[in-house]
Amino acid sequence: MSERGFPVGEYRDRVARTQTAMTKAGLGALLLTTDVELRYYTGFLTRFWESPTRPWFLILPFEGDPVAVIPSIGVPLMSRSWLTDIRHWQSPDYDDDGIGLLSDTLSELCPRQARIGLPDGPETHLRMPFRDLERLRRMLGPDRVRGDDGLTRSIRSIKSEPEIAKIRTACSIAGRAFARVPEILQTGTPLSNCFRGFQRLCLEEGADWVPYLAGGAGPDGYEDVISPADERPLAQGDVLMLDTGLMYDGYFCDYDRNWSLGPPSSDVQTAHNRLVKAVDAAVELCRPGRTAAELFHAMDKVLTNGTSGPKPGRFGHGLGMHLTEGLSLIPSDHSVLQPGMVLTLEPGVEVGPGRILVHEENIVIRDGPAEFLSPRARDIGVI
Amino acid sequence: MSERGFPVGEYRDRVARTQTAMTKAGLGALLLTTDVELRYYTGFLTRFWESPTRPWFLILPFEGDPVAVIPSIGVPLMSRSWLTDIRHWQSPDYDDDGIGLLSDTLSELCPRQARIGLPDGPETHLRMPFRDLERLRRMLGPDRVRGDDGLTRSIRSIKSEPEIAKIRTACSIAGRAFARVPEILQTGTPLSNCFRGFQRLCLEEGADWVPYLAGGAGPDGYEDVISPADERPLAQGDVLMLDTGLMYDGYFCDYDRNWSLGPPSSDVQTAHNRLVKAVDAAVELCRPGRTAAELFHAMDKVLTNGTSGPKPGRFGHGLGMHLTEGLSLIPSDHSVLQPGMVLTLEPGVEVGPGRILVHEENIVIRDGPAEFLSPRARDIGVI
Repeated sequence: MSERGFPVGEYRDRVARTQTAMTKAGLGALLLTTDVELRYYTGFLTRFWESPTRPWFLILPFEGDPVAVIPSIGVPLMSRSWLTDIRHWQSPDYDDDGIGLLSDTLSELCPRQARIGLPDGPETHLRMPFRDLERLRRMLGPDRVRGDDGLTRSIRSIKSEPEIAKIRTACSIAGRAFARVPEILQTGTPLSNCFRGFQRLCLEEGADWVPYLAGGAGPDGYEDVISPADERPLAQGDVLMLDTGLMYDGYFCDYDRNWSLGPPSSDVQTAHNRLVKAVDAAVELCRPGRTAAELFHAMDKVLTNGTSGPKPGRFGHGLGMHLTEGLSLIPSDHSVLQPGMVLTLEPGVEVGPGRILVHEENIVIRDGPAEFLSPRARDIGVI
Repeated sequence: MSERGFPVGEYRDRVARTQTAMTKAGLGALLLTTDVELRYYTGFLTRFWESPTRPWFLILPFEGDPVAVIPSIGVPLMSRSWLTDIRHWQSPDYDDDGIGLLSDTLSELCPRQARIGLPDGPETHLRMPFRDLERLRRMLGPDRVRGDDGLTRSIRSIKSEPEIAKIRTACSIAGRAFARVPEILQTGTPLSNCFRGFQRLCLEEGADWVPYLAGGAGPDGYEDVISPADERPLAQGDVLMLDTGLMYDGYFCDYDRNWSLGPPSSDVQTAHNRLVKAVDAAVELCRPGRTAAELFHAMDKVLTNGTSGPKPGRFGHGLGMHLTEGLSLIPSDHSVLQPGMVLTLEPGVEVGPGRILVHEENIVIRDGPAEFLSPRARDIGVI
């Protein structure tokens, strides 16, 4: 297992890379409000984000260290981070939940005419009430606050070796849990019990927690890949899929495995073989300089002979502090692969009407061939 | 255990209550974007919200049924809800991730001059990129979109009996898991193993998943209540606190328990007794017509003889589909208690410098005395 957290140098490097990009983009400061955004620059790791009551802010100025503007309840934990400037207020405060302090701090750190960037574009949102944003814009001047054109998202898309190590650990934990699935599974087991049992296995194998588990089961495949478990008992002939995003030290894995209860039908076997071949075809192209769209088309050729797009919309995506982040393996994503990008390859295929099979692996782009982070599966499991 | 989901009448009732409030507030439609907001009106329950890539929208017009505007990947699951009007697009779409379809649908459902409300105030945020909000406002006319002044939050604050039953089930599951903590705990156990072991117990006792677990351990108390587990082994004389928000069918419990490793010191015993007495004092006042502030002051009197506010900022909060929602037990919250409100009572006390003890119970306001949903604990556990 890798060490917990990161050395301070890792955070300083992230800040430096971001500030270089900010200068190019003409931003005087970034205003960050979400779990991942704060954690990326500070190491502030807590499950308290589950409570939506209090807003949290981090200001990354164009030069100098980040400044936290946070509820007092977070001060002991933030004080254990590398940050030295931590400003706080007693939240919740119905009159002013930190906006005055935030505005003052921004004014102090950001030159009067400079723009203030908010993370923007895919996978971003602003974690603060609408009226507080409006208030802040009135205080700062409405034209000073603008989107960052995907700057922060782009910075996070290239993972450092310590980050990759954490994702590798998460993948290993999931691999050991997947290997133990036969322990929790038999004909007649309700799907909801499989879900509970699998989460238990993930924890036993070392997951910190299991933020994401989806799956499905049915004869010759499942209807979709995002539904929660129901109480239906598993039956002979069912294909079961479990797809987990478990977390280790703040980083996700995201991959799935399929099992057939009893010998797989020839349709299922054929479909699973095709999924594995699609992964082969994609991995072949997983080199710096290739694009997300090229990976999509390589898989689509194996799956549909290039005749149609995928029903679920994409054949994979970036992975890291979010379950899904960064590029998408879709025809319109021309992002260029770079060393340090961590991806999922996630081809899906229709076995019959309303019945799909999805297979997923996690890899990291290297200077040479890609490295598998998930312990690659070639065969469908048989229970 | 209660049944899964709700009968359609429950959703229709929520919609009707909301539409009555919308008419009063002069709103032609509500635009909803988050997990809890969509689920409250549709029953759409999935852990797929963990993926931040795709935006999801629900429009609640001033009359008629809600209309979903969602990524195609969600159509099979949403089709199993009571909604009949489900519009979808292939997401992610870098040119237009649903905003055109959303704008068209809003224009169709909402009278041309009527305002469109966004959930606003404490515990709200808009789950969509900043630029997409700006784009939508340009398409609709910037002045048409405004905050809802806490309307949706207020509607959710009174729970129906079926909702209370789910929270009761969640509380019972946690109660059984807490009772089994001695199984996973001994001197020398690293705190991180306690956390993993406790999540395992929650799953074994019937939790669907465990979105929230915090805690702390140390001699005579802990430093804060939001930190993740570290690897420090538990020692004789430590007090351990575990605080869980586990989920059952989309509803949270949120309460904690304390254990002393070995006999508690007299300081710890005194502090714990005081916390229990503070809960007694609050419960006495947990009747319709009383206010959140009155509960705060009743507890503060027991804890500090009314001389100071609490370090963590509040002595409890509302509970339901969020871990924390609705009113806060702080001096400035004058919300009036009403039957069907579910609350946590969460007094905290300083045992020594940087050492606190926090105790928490979950209750529901009734016409008569409040009903405990958590199996009340009066004594600190001893391992």
